[in-house]
Amino acid sequence: MRLATEPSLDPETYPFHHRLRVRFAETDAMGIVHHSRYAPYLEEARVEFLRAIGRPYTAWREAGLDAAVLELWVQYRQPLHFDDVVDVHVRLATATRTAFEMAYLLTVGGRVHARAVTVHGCVTADGRPTRLPAWLPALVADAT
Amino acid sequence: MRLATEPSLDPETYPFHHRLRVRFAETDAMGIVHHSRYAPYLEEARVEFLRAIGRPYTAWREAGLDAAVLELWVQYRQPLHFDDVVDVHVRLATATRTAFEMAYLLTVGGRVHARAVTVHGCVTADGRPTRLPAWLPALVADAT
Amino acid sequence: MRLATEPSLDPETYPFHHRLRVRFAETDAMGIVHHSRYAPYLEEARVEFLRAIGRPYTAWREAGLDAAVLELWVQYRQPLHFDDVVDVHVRLATATRTAFEMAYLLTVGGRVHARAVTVHGCVTADGRPTRLPAWLPALVADAT
Amino acid sequence: MRLATEPSLDPETYPFHHRLRVRFAETDAMGIVHHSRYAPYLEEARVEFLRAIGRPYTAWREAGLDAAVLELWVQYRQPLHFDDVVDVHVRLATATRTAFEMAYLLTVGGRVHARAVTVHGCVTADGRPTRLPAWLPALVADAT
Repeated sequence: MRLATEPSLDPETYPFHHRLRVRFAETDAMGIVHHSRYAPYLEEARVEFLRAIGRPYTAWREAGLDAAVLELWVQYRQPLHFDDVVDVHVRLATATRTAFEMAYLLTVGGRVHARAVTVHGCVTADGRPTRLPAWLPALVADAT
Repeated sequence: MRLATEPSLDPETYPFHHRLRVRFAETDAMGIVHHSRYAPYLEEARVEFLRAIGRPYTAWREAGLDAAVLELWVQYRQPLHFDDVVDVHVRLATATRTAFEMAYLLTVGGRVHARAVTVHGCVTADGRPTRLPAWLPALVADAT
Repeated sequence: MRLATEPSLDPETYPFHHRLRVRFAETDAMGIVHHSRYAPYLEEARVEFLRAIGRPYTAWREAGLDAAVLELWVQYRQPLHFDDVVDVHVRLATATRTAFEMAYLLTVGGRVHARAVTVHGCVTADGRPTRLPAWLPALVADAT
Repeated sequence: MRLATEPSLDPETYPFHHRLRVRFAETDAMGIVHHSRYAPYLEEARVEFLRAIGRPYTAWREAGLDAAVLELWVQYRQPLHFDDVVDVHVRLATATRTAFEMAYLLTVGGRVHARAVTVHGCVTADGRPTRLPAWLPALVADAT
């Protein structure tokens, strides 16, 4: 496994969060949000994080780059329910020349419900691996 | 509304059916399959129908064509549940130069659970409307 | 078909709208939002509409009621793309003792992209059909 | 992190596999299967594995038990595309009194595309953690 980050359980350690509300369509017959539905939450928060730091994902795509997901890890600690208002806290955790990791903490009313890591590599529009843009490793260095 | 077809409630009137099993991920907190999850069932059956008649969807795409969905109608008569084995009956109902309609009946153990219609138009790879391939209207004429 | 409503193409005829942003997870290999993904948009807007008029869906469920979807109709006029900001305009269109219809118009920057109708019946917590709450037909009468 | 299993890259080390076909609805605007769509593939294979060993998931639920997902890890090695026929190889990897791990390998035509682990705990119908059924740890012991 490539992923090296253990996401902090303290929301204060994340520089950004994105708020969303659970859709009914995301619940399952156990009455809770289906575990496959967390990945789109992470993605939505990641997109907003990149927008917030001035590096919107649409600009990546216009530049012929994509951030392919190489690994996903989610730890489900407390279930989410329909209509819950979820804060997805996001942090750029590590970056090498070819891959970067993002850490996430999901809270509802300040209480931890889940945490997650995604590992990404840069690919060109036709899917070939390529170097990360230089600002990405720099951003990790700044945050440390 | 463009759709003109009222799908028959008799499975015998459909030339083809595709069998699938309900995934747990497709259920919702009412304990039944979420209504948004029927459209992928119809699509899966449509793909198998096209394969069965020797016009696989992958060949459409290789020929630079796509069958864009213009309209969708679903009538939910009996709920579907996790692990149900569903027969999706499919029929090419009508075709003009620019659009065609497909009719569907969903049964479980022979009992009707839902019916549906999709209306499609042909588009080129860059999304512009184009004429249907000639075999499509011919197929409707044959079936009548 | 039960549905009797033809949704207006004029956003001004809808008393409420809900704004949402397209997720990347909702796109498909044609580069546009998959047609099955509109139903959750309608549902999200419906939930917010009910909250706005003081009849939140969570209160329905606590009262042992659910609004089962009986029919769905969607007309796709212009595709939606990743990151589009979509206004889902909502209107309670008709109501009888046992069913009600909602009409929707989806716009991006004021331009119409889709319209839709959902037909709903009231069911008890164990799934049996029941009468609509009295405020629902009253609401339609008020709006006329 | 709780997960301790590193899934083998050799399909021969898995006692069971389930074959499925990628739906168009599961692709995204990168032209590949969206990373959130793998979890339902794992779930579908897990359901079939449990059925194959005579412990169907429906029987769990009738007995008032559910197998809550505690953790998910997926490593994406080669993308999946529309219409790909995917073999999801499954193995019960470890089990303690309160949790068990399943390992997965996804192949297309014998070539490895992804691997994954899910960690599960038993919960009662009202969501409280409970002991695993005795046959589960026994099954791991047998396999070793």
